[in-house]
Amino acid sequence: MPLTGKMFVGQERIAGTSGSFQAINPSRGIPLEPSFGGATLEMLDRACALAAAAFDAYRESSLEGRAAFLESIADNVLNLGDELIERGVAETGLPRARLEGERRRTVDQLRLFAQVVRGGSFLEPRLDPPLPSRPSPRPDLRVQHVPVGPVAVFGSSNFPLAFSVAGGDTASALAAGCPVIVKAHNAHPGVSELVAGAVQRAVSAHRLPEGVFSMLFGVDTGLGQALVADPRVKGVGFTGSRAGGTALMRIAAQRAEPIFVHAEMSSVNPVILLPGALAQRGAAIAEGFVASLTLGAGQFCTNPGLLLAIEGPDLETFIAHAAAQVRSSGASTMLTGPIHGAYESGLSQRCALSGVTVAACGERAEGWRSQTALLSARAETVLADRSLQEELFGPASLLVRCRDLEQLRQVAESLEGQLTASVHLEAADLEMARKLLPVLERRAGRLIFNGFPTGVEVSHAMVHGGPYPATSDPRFTSVGTLAIRRFLRPVCYQDMPAALVPPALRDGNPLGLWRLKDGRPGRE
Amino acid sequence: MPLTGKMFVGQERIAGTSGSFQAINPSRGIPLEPSFGGATLEMLDRACALAAAAFDAYRESSLEGRAAFLESIADNVLNLGDELIERGVAETGLPRARLEGERRRTVDQLRLFAQVVRGGSFLEPRLDPPLPSRPSPRPDLRVQHVPVGPVAVFGSSNFPLAFSVAGGDTASALAAGCPVIVKAHNAHPGVSELVAGAVQRAVSAHRLPEGVFSMLFGVDTGLGQALVADPRVKGVGFTGSRAGGTALMRIAAQRAEPIFVHAEMSSVNPVILLPGALAQRGAAIAEGFVASLTLGAGQFCTNPGLLLAIEGPDLETFIAHAAAQVRSSGASTMLTGPIHGAYESGLSQRCALSGVTVAACGERAEGWRSQTALLSARAETVLADRSLQEELFGPASLLVRCRDLEQLRQVAESLEGQLTASVHLEAADLEMARKLLPVLERRAGRLIFNGFPTGVEVSHAMVHGGPYPATSDPRFTSVGTLAIRRFLRPVCYQDMPAALVPPALRDGNPLGLWRLKDGRPGRE
Repeated sequence: MPLTGKMFVGQERIAGTSGSFQAINPSRGIPLEPSFGGATLEMLDRACALAAAAFDAYRESSLEGRAAFLESIADNVLNLGDELIERGVAETGLPRARLEGERRRTVDQLRLFAQVVRGGSFLEPRLDPPLPSRPSPRPDLRVQHVPVGPVAVFGSSNFPLAFSVAGGDTASALAAGCPVIVKAHNAHPGVSELVAGAVQRAVSAHRLPEGVFSMLFGVDTGLGQALVADPRVKGVGFTGSRAGGTALMRIAAQRAEPIFVHAEMSSVNPVILLPGALAQRGAAIAEGFVASLTLGAGQFCTNPGLLLAIEGPDLETFIAHAAAQVRSSGASTMLTGPIHGAYESGLSQRCALSGVTVAACGERAEGWRSQTALLSARAETVLADRSLQEELFGPASLLVRCRDLEQLRQVAESLEGQLTASVHLEAADLEMARKLLPVLERRAGRLIFNGFPTGVEVSHAMVHGGPYPATSDPRFTSVGTLAIRRFLRPVCYQDMPAALVPPALRDGNPLGLWRLKDGRPGRE
Repeated sequence: MPLTGKMFVGQERIAGTSGSFQAINPSRGIPLEPSFGGATLEMLDRACALAAAAFDAYRESSLEGRAAFLESIADNVLNLGDELIERGVAETGLPRARLEGERRRTVDQLRLFAQVVRGGSFLEPRLDPPLPSRPSPRPDLRVQHVPVGPVAVFGSSNFPLAFSVAGGDTASALAAGCPVIVKAHNAHPGVSELVAGAVQRAVSAHRLPEGVFSMLFGVDTGLGQALVADPRVKGVGFTGSRAGGTALMRIAAQRAEPIFVHAEMSSVNPVILLPGALAQRGAAIAEGFVASLTLGAGQFCTNPGLLLAIEGPDLETFIAHAAAQVRSSGASTMLTGPIHGAYESGLSQRCALSGVTVAACGERAEGWRSQTALLSARAETVLADRSLQEELFGPASLLVRCRDLEQLRQVAESLEGQLTASVHLEAADLEMARKLLPVLERRAGRLIFNGFPTGVEVSHAMVHGGPYPATSDPRFTSVGTLAIRRFLRPVCYQDMPAALVPPALRDGNPLGLWRLKDGRPGRE
């Protein structure tokens, strides 16, 4: 089916009339048909009204019904077939294999959340039976987690599928029982329209209220801001830049009813190379590092933007190996003109800073293509100029040369919050690692050993989060099954008549859930 | 030991030099000795520095050690003996029996959190074993929850023990592994000094770093604001007014590193009287209602400030009974002059509003004593003037007369977020209750059936929270064992060498915890 350039306000396909835009093929710099129209405030209002109206019915849907709905979305995304992949390649410049992998990840993610919903453990049921003969009697208390309400989702430019219209935020919010209104990213509107259609077909097939899902375009930031400000929206999931995330956080905090924004924003993902590891396998680490650095043209929130190491001959050998790898790395098309422009100008600014030297650069090519860069600076320089610790979105990394472990620890201590921190170590480095661990644990949501930060498994034990500015709230993750918790709140039912008790909390445990009874887990 | 008027900056007792104040005996309106000095910014800086320095060591303390520390605090509070109760009576005007009960609650709360710490389930360990032969291999992933960092706690005026220096926020933050800096409430500085001493004696006895706990006074709001703004503070627990809570939320949002404020603020706790219940036991409900309304001079966050009912003869009978109870209710000393003043002026403003009638008033007495009041208005009046839904801290409640269930539902739908919503019902009311439940569940953290909102059990299945303005974030509770979650964040360890893995995540499960392995709970 050809693309229409329309949005989804519930089930209705609507052409936006507040300005228009086209996707641009970044490999060729040319606009792609069709034009997409921006939503008016009236269209936004309608989407919010539908979401609010859908909430009570959707959250009452059975666990099985909701799980099957998520699985239908997954099936429908797969059934889009090659059209989705081709449009994705055209809109993002990402290689076909990468988009196929991302589609698999997106589909698997939806299916994993379906499993989570079916299992019901996210409800976290707890029962404290009554104690009528206690001097001050205890009532019958039962807790479960319920969805927060309609959620606004802002997809990212760099994951047109996995962190976009039917990506992790949407999947976890729908799994929680929240209707979702997506503000699609303008870098891939065609992919967004296709995926939104897949979601809405599942809404219809499962006879859910149409307001469970809407997808809007906006030509500027105004529409997203109005979405976050809308009183019917009760939570926000955002993946993108620090400037974008903090702007939404401000709006959410200033509402008559402030709400949470879970924003995943900015991280330089320090990689620490301890001496034993450098001595034993510096060349292999250099190879792995440059592969991680250049993956997807460096356009990952987990891109390794900072290397920390202690000076010495083994570090020089490592640098020589890494520099060789960087020099032979090809230029890759970046996602959009603005991303490419920001990378180029950010990189030249950094290279021009006193105290910063260029260890190596990769291929330079015309168009919106990235040039890999490995820079180097002494710890003193990095400690004096905090801007060197800021994220530069693209395949550039800064090696920080430290005098000794204490200075390395000091640099680590000076870092802002991070999604990840990686440590390369051998047995001889264990004591050093022990000294660094508390610092890293305070700063990052995921600690990686003898590996690199790119590649985020979607599973039960994943954390993709961390202290600000990695995210807006380090108590949550946006990847993995724990991500559902962002969209849930506990409700206690006190002395509730049996006829009204929700299924998860009923006597006899009809759903067969793990429940905490008087503080003890069981499945009676 | 006589009171010194000093604060605790770690273990050091320091006399604040930034202004001074005295507690005032509200029963007599006279100042109590000694004078207490406000902390300077240097003293605050020192407390924050000590807390930051204590964090790594404290969070690494064993579960058993931390549990024993909490139990020592409980013992030490009990060992303060009658001096604590007498000073409490003098500072708050609350009856001795109430303070003894509150001490029991405080001590039990500390002991319950000790149990939670010992059990270790709050760590929520999860393990995803490696899948090395998968096409894209999965690494070894392990998650546990770690404390967020030093926490600032703001105690409330109305619970000088249970929501104050060693109250629920402090107990749950210490249980999580967070050092705590308390900004004590100026209404009960003597009680605060005594309890802070009890906490610090436990810190010493357990050889913990002194920065695990500090307690500061401030003569105005400046000190608390500086505390929330301090970059070493990573989270805030607050119990108090909406104005106070939102001021701290703003400061926390404007920091270079925004942090969460868990503020428990404002709730009118609607009580819905359905027709069958009114017909069957209106008099008994009236009695229970007025007892809940007047408890503690109405100075509870769960005070029933709003009654919703459908008009009819049974409602009139109920009102007659309730009015008689209100008329015979005595005046009680309120906590402070400003609280009394705000209650008196708020009440007269409300009584003067067109459409509001006074159903009954209780005893009126000199001094800072509360007069019970039952007001009444039609639903239209309440829907037109949102100020009638605002919390009036004290023993006043507004009965909203509704035409029918639909209008009652409309009033409920118009309410802001609440800590509680109560429903009185009989079998004949079940269908009506079913229609109201989704509305109430969206608005309140706890739904109570055939009971009243005052009385908050401290247990596993309690929720003392709710959408704004009840709290700043409905995803958390400030009472019950789930309260610990406010102060924890997940951290993932990827391919961590066995020698470094934290005890909760080790192979063989040496702590014997319930852990989620590949998504399945077990205790292997």
